[in-house]
Amino acid sequence: MNLNEIRARIETLKNRKIGMYRKDFLLTWEKTRDEIDATFDVADILRGLRDAGISPRVWDSGIAVSNFRDNSTRTRFSYSSACDLLGLYVQDLDEGKSQIAHGETVRETANMISFLTEAIGIRDDMYLGEGDKYQREVGKALDDGVAAGVLPDRPTVVNLQSDIDHPTQSMADFLHLAHHFGGLSKLKGKKIAMTWAYSPSYGKPLSVPQGIIGLASRFGMDITLAHPEGYDLIPEVVELSKKQAKESGGSFKHVNSMDEAFQGADIVYPKSWAPYDVMLKRVPLLHAGDQAGLKDLEKACLANNAKFRDWECTEQKMKLTAGGKALYMHCLPADITDVSCKAGEVAATVFDRYRDDTYREASWKPYIIAAMILLGKFQDPAKVLAGLVERNRKRVG
Amino acid sequence: MNLNEIRARIETLKNRKIGMYRKDFLLTWEKTRDEIDATFDVADILRGLRDAGISPRVWDSGIAVSNFRDNSTRTRFSYSSACDLLGLYVQDLDEGKSQIAHGETVRETANMISFLTEAIGIRDDMYLGEGDKYQREVGKALDDGVAAGVLPDRPTVVNLQSDIDHPTQSMADFLHLAHHFGGLSKLKGKKIAMTWAYSPSYGKPLSVPQGIIGLASRFGMDITLAHPEGYDLIPEVVELSKKQAKESGGSFKHVNSMDEAFQGADIVYPKSWAPYDVMLKRVPLLHAGDQAGLKDLEKACLANNAKFRDWECTEQKMKLTAGGKALYMHCLPADITDVSCKAGEVAATVFDRYRDDTYREASWKPYIIAAMILLGKFQDPAKVLAGLVERNRKRVG
Amino acid sequence: MNLNEIRARIETLKNRKIGMYRKDFLLTWEKTRDEIDATFDVADILRGLRDAGISPRVWDSGIAVSNFRDNSTRTRFSYSSACDLLGLYVQDLDEGKSQIAHGETVRETANMISFLTEAIGIRDDMYLGEGDKYQREVGKALDDGVAAGVLPDRPTVVNLQSDIDHPTQSMADFLHLAHHFGGLSKLKGKKIAMTWAYSPSYGKPLSVPQGIIGLASRFGMDITLAHPEGYDLIPEVVELSKKQAKESGGSFKHVNSMDEAFQGADIVYPKSWAPYDVMLKRVPLLHAGDQAGLKDLEKACLANNAKFRDWECTEQKMKLTAGGKALYMHCLPADITDVSCKAGEVAATVFDRYRDDTYREASWKPYIIAAMILLGKFQDPAKVLAGLVERNRKRVG
Repeated sequence: MNLNEIRARIETLKNRKIGMYRKDFLLTWEKTRDEIDATFDVADILRGLRDAGISPRVWDSGIAVSNFRDNSTRTRFSYSSACDLLGLYVQDLDEGKSQIAHGETVRETANMISFLTEAIGIRDDMYLGEGDKYQREVGKALDDGVAAGVLPDRPTVVNLQSDIDHPTQSMADFLHLAHHFGGLSKLKGKKIAMTWAYSPSYGKPLSVPQGIIGLASRFGMDITLAHPEGYDLIPEVVELSKKQAKESGGSFKHVNSMDEAFQGADIVYPKSWAPYDVMLKRVPLLHAGDQAGLKDLEKACLANNAKFRDWECTEQKMKLTAGGKALYMHCLPADITDVSCKAGEVAATVFDRYRDDTYREASWKPYIIAAMILLGKFQDPAKVLAGLVERNRKRVG
Repeated sequence: MNLNEIRARIETLKNRKIGMYRKDFLLTWEKTRDEIDATFDVADILRGLRDAGISPRVWDSGIAVSNFRDNSTRTRFSYSSACDLLGLYVQDLDEGKSQIAHGETVRETANMISFLTEAIGIRDDMYLGEGDKYQREVGKALDDGVAAGVLPDRPTVVNLQSDIDHPTQSMADFLHLAHHFGGLSKLKGKKIAMTWAYSPSYGKPLSVPQGIIGLASRFGMDITLAHPEGYDLIPEVVELSKKQAKESGGSFKHVNSMDEAFQGADIVYPKSWAPYDVMLKRVPLLHAGDQAGLKDLEKACLANNAKFRDWECTEQKMKLTAGGKALYMHCLPADITDVSCKAGEVAATVFDRYRDDTYREASWKPYIIAAMILLGKFQDPAKVLAGLVERNRKRVG
Repeated sequence: MNLNEIRARIETLKNRKIGMYRKDFLLTWEKTRDEIDATFDVADILRGLRDAGISPRVWDSGIAVSNFRDNSTRTRFSYSSACDLLGLYVQDLDEGKSQIAHGETVRETANMISFLTEAIGIRDDMYLGEGDKYQREVGKALDDGVAAGVLPDRPTVVNLQSDIDHPTQSMADFLHLAHHFGGLSKLKGKKIAMTWAYSPSYGKPLSVPQGIIGLASRFGMDITLAHPEGYDLIPEVVELSKKQAKESGGSFKHVNSMDEAFQGADIVYPKSWAPYDVMLKRVPLLHAGDQAGLKDLEKACLANNAKFRDWECTEQKMKLTAGGKALYMHCLPADITDVSCKAGEVAATVFDRYRDDTYREASWKPYIIAAMILLGKFQDPAKVLAGLVERNRKRVG
């Protein structure tokens, strides 16, 4: 984007009806279409500014809290990069993975870390029924803190992956699609296959496939969700996606065949996840610290997985897609057959061909996160961005 | 504070006689009353600037070392927030909790981490007789480094809790009191009850109660220190507080009854700590890594604690205070009966009523820390602050 | 340096023929003499600017990745300080020490952490044959990422210690020598003794002595490398150093006597390392996680070490040096006899006399690292530095 394009995009943003100020970004389906689009606008503008050498730094000081209750490399770096780009210093909150805080502790910690804090990024995807709940509890505590005059301002909470959604991933994925296909409007009528794929590992969260169907269904796409019997997602999210698909002028098919999903697809997203049932059973075992029970569950689950080794994104399967050239997507790291494991989600030659695409896909995440923060913190984001253009401060040199 | 009030406060600061430049902030009783007041001035001014949207950033680059030899969430965040507000990047020094460095190692490390360092925050409260000693050893090494021309400038050491004092806590507590009661001068003649309270945990440091009596005794307050027999603090600190109380026109009572302390109190600070004797016994066991010995000591100590379950800040006890409305204080987290434990330091209804007050109390800590750094680093802090007002750089946007 | 001296030095830099832009700094012997000198120029200029109170911050935002695959305090702080000085935020990449990444994982991680990244510092010195290889693999992945349009810019990789070289150490050491002796040109004909010394510990990397002989041999120095029989360095590095010494008009002697090395030396660098053979044997044991095998190897190695306790830098040995006053150097921490251990690399009185010198030696490291980053990231570093002088932004206040 050149400066004129940046300015035009700021005008577009100005005309959107959004109410994201002092709100958190937890689930894409809680956001209006205008708010989704505004997030893409801001992400594009921030990247445009940086590419043009103009510093998008809006804070001269300020803290961004990074609360990872599960391992992460790429989201951690995306979050740090986003915060640093805006001028925020990232302070880790290490609560320990296993500990689930409740009530008083959450309320207190949320306030104690927020006196000079602008944003709080939280990854909490280990326990079904807990991650999203925890993020809302933090948000509520912050609201109370502001209302009581304890906090000078409301930090914005960004969901860096919960048990339900992974909005920084799905939004980055779709900004990638918008750029790949020449605009969000081009997604209408495109067929996307969100399918389970075989992996030798176990217990991968449901939030990525849920995030994808929950967002794809906003753009009038033809969605096929495919997985072996028993590998369900959270039923409410599937129902919601069906409803949204219909409302946006698209469609939603739910099948048990990878081939059927790939047939004529414009986009394929083959990715392993653990069955909903297993994730449910895991929660009390994790809570109880029942290592033997967890081991048994893992064993049973892996044995079941093994029945579906043919759920692999092979060259053969790719041939079923539209023109044999569907865009392959993955949140990375992928389980690549004969590379990262003996048998995995994707054939090495397929992955090789799309590697740069998946890297490009990932490259949007820092900007998406920065956009979420900016929109949560400023009532008039267009004005703030216009101010950056006008200020015209060099990022480098 | 509006800009005029900020300017007026800078004038007040200008008239104080202070000698804090290139000195460390280790114990409040090593500071003159003017220096204590200057610290409050600077904290208030920095908060005023931030609230007014003016950036208090004084460094364009610079390192702040964070050396936590014991766990911390709130002080860690306060320190990070303070440093970031001033423009410093926080680099953790992870030495491992158990390791006590001496002599050559301290001297060398202190210099190696300080070539571009402006501030060093140290928490070292595990070993009685060690924490303060270690902080002074670091300070001495820095003095030597400057004298030898090895270091371009003297980083200032801030005590983030030692075995003796917890000045960032006590100073934040008293800045809270100043705001609560309408000025430090209003504290004269107020009755403060620093009392032990029951907790099911063990080994809490003595530095908070010591910090409170050591600072309360500077303002002409009527102090009552209360604890069960045997739960003594470091005798020298109690003696010093008595002396200071007298000199400042206040009084100091030392009793073995929580009720007596609460009687007519304007402020109550009920908080558990380990007996001085136990802390003394713990040191050689910790040094020897004698886990069995430590376990035995803990068991004996908890058994003894259990005799004093009635040392709880209940509604009944609160009724004994002045008008039944004493201000409840705590450094957090509190052990709340039926919330964080079965029986603890404070009843849930009492804590509920004062929760926001305790949060506000904590909110001063980042500014107190920033003030300590600023006063240690600048010979003419009033000029620096006036410069910030004049520069009038926006913190946001 | 005053401003005129800084300006003059920028002129000197301008006249150097350098091709460091978008290149990594992995081994000093891959750099031309002009490039080595340019690195010293930039380090001196950056320090000069900071000492003059002028901010050398060139980035308004940007990430620096810190990837330590082995413990470090001083290099970690040097790296953080360097990055912060230039305006970069340091994000740690914690991959775990034991894990060696290969192929797909390295390629992917290198890209995923680099979307907004300017520099990547890597310490990887545990496995002979691995560290340098890994750093090159990262560099290659970054090149590919730039070529594919995935990365907006090429982050520069800085070797913070590999199995082969430790250029931030050796370059800091020689900038110290340049200042100590009044210029690099004064090193010509100086005798430097890089000698093994006894230590009660085991497995110290070879990269420091290799870095020293690999760099000393660029300046026409008379090098003596001394160690007990069997304590060889990587043969290729020794051969290369011999060749370089000759080319630069110096000489290279390889002996098995500490006394012979000290005889008439202007500079002595007595430092323990593990024998090349042992390091080779260690690799498969480490890979296999063979704790028993490692223990046996350590035992045998320490027993062998014990035969060479007289390889200590004593007062007596110092008397052998030129005028008895050779400059003692060490990368720190040194094993000091009767201080950090019973018998070590250096006598306490010798170390005492040179302590400040070793601290000064270390003080150059942050500036050397900052120089390496700047030279890797800017095509016209002289212009960038001149811009900083002209901008004349205060670092403090």
